Amino acid sequence: MSPLSPDAAVAALNWRYAVKKFDPTKKIPAPTWAALEQSLVLSPSSYGLQPWKFFVVETPAVREQLLPHSWGQRQVVDASHLVVFAVKKEMTAADADRLIARTSQVREVHVETLAGYHKMMAGSLTRTPAEQVDVWMSRQVFIALGVFLTTAAVLGVDTCPMEGFVPEKYDEVLGLGAKGYASRVVATAGYRAADDAYAGLKKVRYEPGEVVERV
Amino acid sequence: MSPLSPDAAVAALNWRYAVKKFDPTKKIPAPTWAALEQSLVLSPSSYGLQPWKFFVVETPAVREQLLPHSWGQRQVVDASHLVVFAVKKEMTAADADRLIARTSQVREVHVETLAGYHKMMAGSLTRTPAEQVDVWMSRQVFIALGVFLTTAAVLGVDTCPMEGFVPEKYDEVLGLGAKGYASRVVATAGYRAADDAYAGLKKVRYEPGEVVERV
Repeated sequence: MSPLSPDAAVAALNWRYAVKKFDPTKKIPAPTWAALEQSLVLSPSSYGLQPWKFFVVETPAVREQLLPHSWGQRQVVDASHLVVFAVKKEMTAADADRLIARTSQVREVHVETLAGYHKMMAGSLTRTPAEQVDVWMSRQVFIALGVFLTTAAVLGVDTCPMEGFVPEKYDEVLGLGAKGYASRVVATAGYRAADDAYAGLKKVRYEPGEVVERV
Repeated sequence: MSPLSPDAAVAALNWRYAVKKFDPTKKIPAPTWAALEQSLVLSPSSYGLQPWKFFVVETPAVREQLLPHSWGQRQVVDASHLVVFAVKKEMTAADADRLIARTSQVREVHVETLAGYHKMMAGSLTRTPAEQVDVWMSRQVFIALGVFLTTAAVLGVDTCPMEGFVPEKYDEVLGLGAKGYASRVVATAGYRAADDAYAGLKKVRYEPGEVVERV
């Protein structure tokens, strides 16, 4: 038995759209939000490195401060929740060490049995130029975004993914730089306003045959 | 009523893992696969540009050809389905024109009413250096990967996302370059083998407090 039928899954994905106007009075219930945070924690990443941190901005004054750096998009203040998806700025062999230590702890195995895995990860992180590591790791953050948006859709929670913001300003307001992180993308989550005109618009997608090709 | 309860959603995400050994005899039923293709088609992207193509490799001989370029990972041949996520190599003002034409068609509105939207997109694509456009567009492909993996999980379909492959060789085997695309990431999908040792391992994640921070 799968959790959802194919029809129900597609219906949820069609129901999802980039909300322009949230209902500021509607808050995501705690158990639902806990599941959404879990979707971030459980998101897959290269080697399982989890090169990220998810900043949930709760303080209204801070959200107001972010508004002028968000192309004026009010979702940043009106949505129930705002998540800033950030990448870890430096990923080195130390991150491989850390993941191996965690793996050893969770799976109750000796670090020595993980030597091959460690060598492969540390090698990749060391041999790849720093700029390329950032490209590689930033992509992982977008996997987490996809996981978050899809989980929200099957939970009946509305979202709006946003690349229209000034990352440097977000980093400044949230003090991310000093923490070793850099913002890459934002997601707001909550419930659509009854009068969001965008809710009724048809979803614009190219024909499936233009996007999916069988080989 | 949401399609899934918070508990059911988290259970599906915990059930998901990167399958190392698929059961080669088990195929994804057609209606389920159709939903997974829809998850790709419906995936969100910057401006709705859909700067991608998803190549579903069905021909067994082609999948065998990809194996030596996949760090020998047998999922590439054993899984029911193999999807190569590719980015469109060149994104220019013409892509903004194309999306506007499609939007006008789907929503039955005049192109002139979309002038502001067109200008913003075309401006972004034109002003941004080509290399940065590729970074930007490639990230969208990883959103689609996250959507696909999560949709599979709620459909009870196993997956394995793979960055361990040689993109240049994949592009060569599949003739992607001539089509204007470049492979960025791969996902295999199907059903775990009864004896996949990885299915029983505990998922390794950092403590939620290390990954999610409230501001």
